[in-house]
Amino acid sequence: MTSNAIESSSPLAERQIVVTLGCPDATGIVAKLASYVATSGGCIVEAHYFTDPHSGWFFTRQAVRADSLEIPVDDFTTGIGEIAEELGHNVRWRVWDTARPKKAVILVSKEGHCLHDLLGRVDQNDYPMEVAAVIGNHDVLRRTAENHNVPFHHIPFPKDAVGKRKAFDKVSEIVQSHDPDAVVLARFMQILPPDLCEMWEGKAINIHHSFLPSFMGARPYHQAYQRGVKLIGATCHYATSDLDDGPIIEQDVIRISHKDTPSDMQRLGRDAEKIVLARGLRYHLEDRVQVYGNRTVIFD
Amino acid sequence: MTSNAIESSSPLAERQIVVTLGCPDATGIVAKLASYVATSGGCIVEAHYFTDPHSGWFFTRQAVRADSLEIPVDDFTTGIGEIAEELGHNVRWRVWDTARPKKAVILVSKEGHCLHDLLGRVDQNDYPMEVAAVIGNHDVLRRTAENHNVPFHHIPFPKDAVGKRKAFDKVSEIVQSHDPDAVVLARFMQILPPDLCEMWEGKAINIHHSFLPSFMGARPYHQAYQRGVKLIGATCHYATSDLDDGPIIEQDVIRISHKDTPSDMQRLGRDAEKIVLARGLRYHLEDRVQVYGNRTVIFD
Amino acid sequence: MTSNAIESSSPLAERQIVVTLGCPDATGIVAKLASYVATSGGCIVEAHYFTDPHSGWFFTRQAVRADSLEIPVDDFTTGIGEIAEELGHNVRWRVWDTARPKKAVILVSKEGHCLHDLLGRVDQNDYPMEVAAVIGNHDVLRRTAENHNVPFHHIPFPKDAVGKRKAFDKVSEIVQSHDPDAVVLARFMQILPPDLCEMWEGKAINIHHSFLPSFMGARPYHQAYQRGVKLIGATCHYATSDLDDGPIIEQDVIRISHKDTPSDMQRLGRDAEKIVLARGLRYHLEDRVQVYGNRTVIFD
Amino acid sequence: MTSNAIESSSPLAERQIVVTLGCPDATGIVAKLASYVATSGGCIVEAHYFTDPHSGWFFTRQAVRADSLEIPVDDFTTGIGEIAEELGHNVRWRVWDTARPKKAVILVSKEGHCLHDLLGRVDQNDYPMEVAAVIGNHDVLRRTAENHNVPFHHIPFPKDAVGKRKAFDKVSEIVQSHDPDAVVLARFMQILPPDLCEMWEGKAINIHHSFLPSFMGARPYHQAYQRGVKLIGATCHYATSDLDDGPIIEQDVIRISHKDTPSDMQRLGRDAEKIVLARGLRYHLEDRVQVYGNRTVIFD
Repeated sequence: MTSNAIESSSPLAERQIVVTLGCPDATGIVAKLASYVATSGGCIVEAHYFTDPHSGWFFTRQAVRADSLEIPVDDFTTGIGEIAEELGHNVRWRVWDTARPKKAVILVSKEGHCLHDLLGRVDQNDYPMEVAAVIGNHDVLRRTAENHNVPFHHIPFPKDAVGKRKAFDKVSEIVQSHDPDAVVLARFMQILPPDLCEMWEGKAINIHHSFLPSFMGARPYHQAYQRGVKLIGATCHYATSDLDDGPIIEQDVIRISHKDTPSDMQRLGRDAEKIVLARGLRYHLEDRVQVYGNRTVIFD
Repeated sequence: MTSNAIESSSPLAERQIVVTLGCPDATGIVAKLASYVATSGGCIVEAHYFTDPHSGWFFTRQAVRADSLEIPVDDFTTGIGEIAEELGHNVRWRVWDTARPKKAVILVSKEGHCLHDLLGRVDQNDYPMEVAAVIGNHDVLRRTAENHNVPFHHIPFPKDAVGKRKAFDKVSEIVQSHDPDAVVLARFMQILPPDLCEMWEGKAINIHHSFLPSFMGARPYHQAYQRGVKLIGATCHYATSDLDDGPIIEQDVIRISHKDTPSDMQRLGRDAEKIVLARGLRYHLEDRVQVYGNRTVIFD
Repeated sequence: MTSNAIESSSPLAERQIVVTLGCPDATGIVAKLASYVATSGGCIVEAHYFTDPHSGWFFTRQAVRADSLEIPVDDFTTGIGEIAEELGHNVRWRVWDTARPKKAVILVSKEGHCLHDLLGRVDQNDYPMEVAAVIGNHDVLRRTAENHNVPFHHIPFPKDAVGKRKAFDKVSEIVQSHDPDAVVLARFMQILPPDLCEMWEGKAINIHHSFLPSFMGARPYHQAYQRGVKLIGATCHYATSDLDDGPIIEQDVIRISHKDTPSDMQRLGRDAEKIVLARGLRYHLEDRVQVYGNRTVIFD
Repeated sequence: MTSNAIESSSPLAERQIVVTLGCPDATGIVAKLASYVATSGGCIVEAHYFTDPHSGWFFTRQAVRADSLEIPVDDFTTGIGEIAEELGHNVRWRVWDTARPKKAVILVSKEGHCLHDLLGRVDQNDYPMEVAAVIGNHDVLRRTAENHNVPFHHIPFPKDAVGKRKAFDKVSEIVQSHDPDAVVLARFMQILPPDLCEMWEGKAINIHHSFLPSFMGARPYHQAYQRGVKLIGATCHYATSDLDDGPIIEQDVIRISHKDTPSDMQRLGRDAEKIVLARGLRYHLEDRVQVYGNRTVIFD
């Protein structure tokens, strides 16, 4: 009984085949790709190109209207793969059929604003994601998850190293059982161990409640208060084994004043956190992000 | 089992007595008020003053720590009333004890992002409001309301004038039964009849999905698309009998580009709408808004 | 004696050949263009593509490193022209060699902030423009222009229609003598007559001191004050015979409060005006703007 | 021949007496001050109060219409001083008659955008400042200063410590000869020695081209590029002997993308730098800033 208005505004209302590719730059790559797409009958809906002048890498994202392709998607994908192979051994490429929704597992602690916001977007058919499970190190947000018909797993995290490791193993097991496209740390207050960072490289997405690299680590709003800044921020980034130092996907700030205590900042900052996470995660889910070194190309 | 972090960031964690007053300006008003507060032992936590140079009106909002008052709140209120009387017959004043939470009724249609966002804030103990009821002219958002333990009333709106009027009478009856501090039009797609605007003057709060006064009326995102603007916005304002022309409480904008269709704007605009409504409504609930003519003073 | 730091940040430090093209969309255009560029040895530095789903028009801007071309620029241009011809009779295309700087004439009245800002950018080698002349309907800003070694022409504007028309003819004569790429209305307070709008179509760029379409016409800050908005703005747009209704290039806003009088808004708004004009005009000068209907594609 | 419109928007068009005061909080301070102002006939145009909950300090700024005072300004000042004395020995207070313009000396290096912007504001009667002198460690910006009839002093800075110290002594001598209210480091690329920081405590105002505390020290845009941030910023702060660590007055950010090189950031960042410096310096000049610890209260 959802209105047409809402349905029609779904970002993926129209089925698309999305090609992403990154490789060392060379003359003629665009021509080669564009010719192949044209030969396949593909009508390009959105096309982005970028060459990084420092690394000399070339990146592209091209979205083709699925119904314009005159060959099966599998054959099209094979063809793109052949071009990629010609371009060199270290080419990174992917073809995504938007008919296959992206899947996420969300890790949380006690603060529910990011989880609530994401589940609301999904529920209103406004976000390109299926949430397979929510895992909490506290049981606080069970109702939030279950209200949206998403299974909730409570995995308590003991304070000792061994207990913590076991808890992470259980988290990992649940996550892996879903083979998700994204592992979302939605104000999950535990630091991922290096092996999980590695296993989920390019998939684990964190929201940090500061404008990184300012105020890394614990209690960023208290740090911000101490320093007397006039804006506070939030940063959505890939989690790596270097805490709060992974490739940044999206950031934003909000203005504060001398009147705002750390508690006020927490309250005000929640809006930045949830919006920045939702934007950054959307880029990831729609294959709009490509990582090189510690930087990201965002084809928005 | 909510964390301390969340509790302590509640804007009203500390009980306050909030005095608001507006009157024609004259020398000595601040002295009179401040002396009275000091005599009562009141410790002022937050004080705002403003004199409008054009109308010559004076406005103030003062928040006193409740536990600092050496006299009962009722006596304090009586004292403020006596000062107000001395200041003239057209003085507008109020004393609000934050121990009494503000009550709202929320009117909705089919789009749930504003409702979902507000209920999430309340649920997370992050918003100074109790929601007495949600009324929808469609039955779409029942689950959203009931998930947060808020009663939902479905009042269908026929297209004919008589049927519509009857529906409004039912809405009005439910609203009045709760005697709310705010009647929130959270993307309620029906135009309030003048008598309801009058009855709820200074209480009925609408979110319009444009940067007013641009794109008043229907389908503002389509209007924005036609005009080719580079930013879209949202406006939180008091509903009056002049459609989309009431006193503005809060506004914000987000950047768009030539790539964004009206559907994209709808999707992007939802974030502006929910954030702007939440900010504007908070100002209203915390007695931070004073209206004069078609303008508002916001003591933030 | 300017520092290297400044020189190296010039947007056009590296000579580029910039191709812009707009035509009805069809499969294979990108392939055709990209193949031609590749065949010519061209190394693409920046490439943008956009197809408007409503009008079905395709737009592109491609910047090629001049020293990568293996054929003379004139031959390259001829080749692009031949492709354009194949694409249809209503194709709009252009090839710009950034070695040829763009030329502007600036029209002003009494307020100097936009003129001062633009001339400062040019002076600091930070803007892709040569200013051929400044024309003022008052003599106020002569020193500002002459300080930057730009000739200033004072053309007084009488109030009667005949006198005004004569003044416009003189303005037009000076402007035309320079054959400029841009006619910049930098807070020029006179309304261009339709014939000049037509003659300078796609070249005459105005800065209006409001967030259009709000507050068109005279005294927008006073209108904004009356309406009680919480943000004020500025809009850079192409001047057309419909006053303040031409295609929008760039817009921005700044936050104000109930304390701000129209005079405060004038002061605060100047920063928005000068920044928005500088951004929008830069897009125009760098061939980043393409107009279709009343909308603009901005390839930034 | 300047227009009325410009004159009337001058922030100090109306002569005001501005009282600022900071002291340990106690009940009744507002009453005492307000009573005194009222007794003196003072009509308060603007009043701000703030009590910092952590330090327990109280701050106020009150602007009185000069022509409303029924006693001479000197007597009024004496009266305020007497109240201050009653409030304790560590009270910090000041009375400023806006009829006395604030005086500044500006230190520059080679980049002229901040200097050009400030001088333009002063020139257009749009800024509450007189510029007594500009001092450059290079001779690059002489013409910019002299175009605005401001004397320019070129003090070359040798690379050796002794030579540098001598240069600083000359700078200090010129600065001190003007007894300025502000020493503005407008992209002055030399680090002030501790004794000058101390001598100009609360007067030396720097613009740093990053969002502090991110990217302190040299080449912040290159640091920002390395880190891959999505916003860059600028910070206006008091210079102290801790480099880039003094109390922050104002900050702002602008959005960048993966396409922006350090050179692009330099170009884009200049707009943030000049606007943020102009705003922060204005707060300082209008006695809107009060420092406590490493934080600032901004009464805007």
